[in-house]
Amino acid sequence: MADEIILLDFWPSMFGMRVRVALAEKGLKYEFREEDLRNKSPLLLEMNPVHKKIPVLIHNGKPICESLIIVQYIDEVWKDKSPLLPSDPYQRAQARFWADYIDKKIFELGRKIWTTKGEDQEAAKKEFIECLKLLEGELGEKPYFGGENFGFVDVALVTFSCWFYAYETFGNFSIEAECPKLIAWTKRCMERESVSSSLADPHKVHGFVVALRKKFGIE
Amino acid sequence: MADEIILLDFWPSMFGMRVRVALAEKGLKYEFREEDLRNKSPLLLEMNPVHKKIPVLIHNGKPICESLIIVQYIDEVWKDKSPLLPSDPYQRAQARFWADYIDKKIFELGRKIWTTKGEDQEAAKKEFIECLKLLEGELGEKPYFGGENFGFVDVALVTFSCWFYAYETFGNFSIEAECPKLIAWTKRCMERESVSSSLADPHKVHGFVVALRKKFGIE
Repeated sequence: MADEIILLDFWPSMFGMRVRVALAEKGLKYEFREEDLRNKSPLLLEMNPVHKKIPVLIHNGKPICESLIIVQYIDEVWKDKSPLLPSDPYQRAQARFWADYIDKKIFELGRKIWTTKGEDQEAAKKEFIECLKLLEGELGEKPYFGGENFGFVDVALVTFSCWFYAYETFGNFSIEAECPKLIAWTKRCMERESVSSSLADPHKVHGFVVALRKKFGIE
Repeated sequence: MADEIILLDFWPSMFGMRVRVALAEKGLKYEFREEDLRNKSPLLLEMNPVHKKIPVLIHNGKPICESLIIVQYIDEVWKDKSPLLPSDPYQRAQARFWADYIDKKIFELGRKIWTTKGEDQEAAKKEFIECLKLLEGELGEKPYFGGENFGFVDVALVTFSCWFYAYETFGNFSIEAECPKLIAWTKRCMERESVSSSLADPHKVHGFVVALRKKFGIE
């Protein structure tokens, strides 16, 4: 029996995009179902009753939730092609550490950049850049966070890159000026079909953020 | 060469206790180094420069940080004895999901119970109990979250149980009255040497919280 794979997702979600990249790395076909987050589908509520959030991967009827957990699941089930986590336990722990760091820092700081002004925004920008510089240091001279191969940390971080244009526009700063090697890495990742076909268009994301700011009364 | 294992920890930390339980489950000897969190050791700052937090496991000179990542590392390196994560990818994803849920909810809600008053405290207590009831539902009639065997989710949650007495005292409520099966599970876990020898004494934790409340000016 062929695997039935359904992804409940929302197009601008960097978390959903992680799952799309992982599925594409493994060469898996799946059904993409766009969710309306203001009017969540009964299937989403049934499949993720705890958090009620996308992305949810439904594999042969069984749901897996939380993007990094889904990516690990995909890596474990389809382990023969394009391994994402290294096989060495220490390297695995390091990869999990950095992916967790990205989860704890980047989303929230990025959100603050386009939802705040003045001192709060300056503080968020400063910390955001500090975090990216730390990640850039971890990348070092390697082509990917995974070393010679595109891996778990690359998947975890690269999906934020299509939000960079929105962060830069509303924060009035240049990420490339601060972190040139990190931007070179995003371009290297974008040469991969798995990434370029999974990430949203930065200008479309910018338009989405414009609409959100209007809705929230931020101008 | 014998493994050199050092744990940088702080006695009341439920995160540190997770690592102690995992090491005990594997029957590993290690050096416990108590940290003074107001005056962190140069070793802690060197081994966890990103978060500067305990616990840190130092295995043959190499640091691993973040409690759930450390527990997975221990499980992967010493995989022959007392496996903590199941071998099936779907079951592994479920275990990671619940451990992540515990991390996202229980610590912060528990902290709110002893740091707030009035409506804020009532809201925290209500949500804390709802979370525990959800976890109790997930446990169901199984002896452990891991099924017949003590596992990853058990390690992730059981260390909070030595804080329950402090939560109950400052929140003026009974966890056992709300979640009797969960309390029966904590007692079952405490019958394991790995757990009973790793967890702090609830009255000592209560005394620690009394001192913290005094320091923060909460009376």
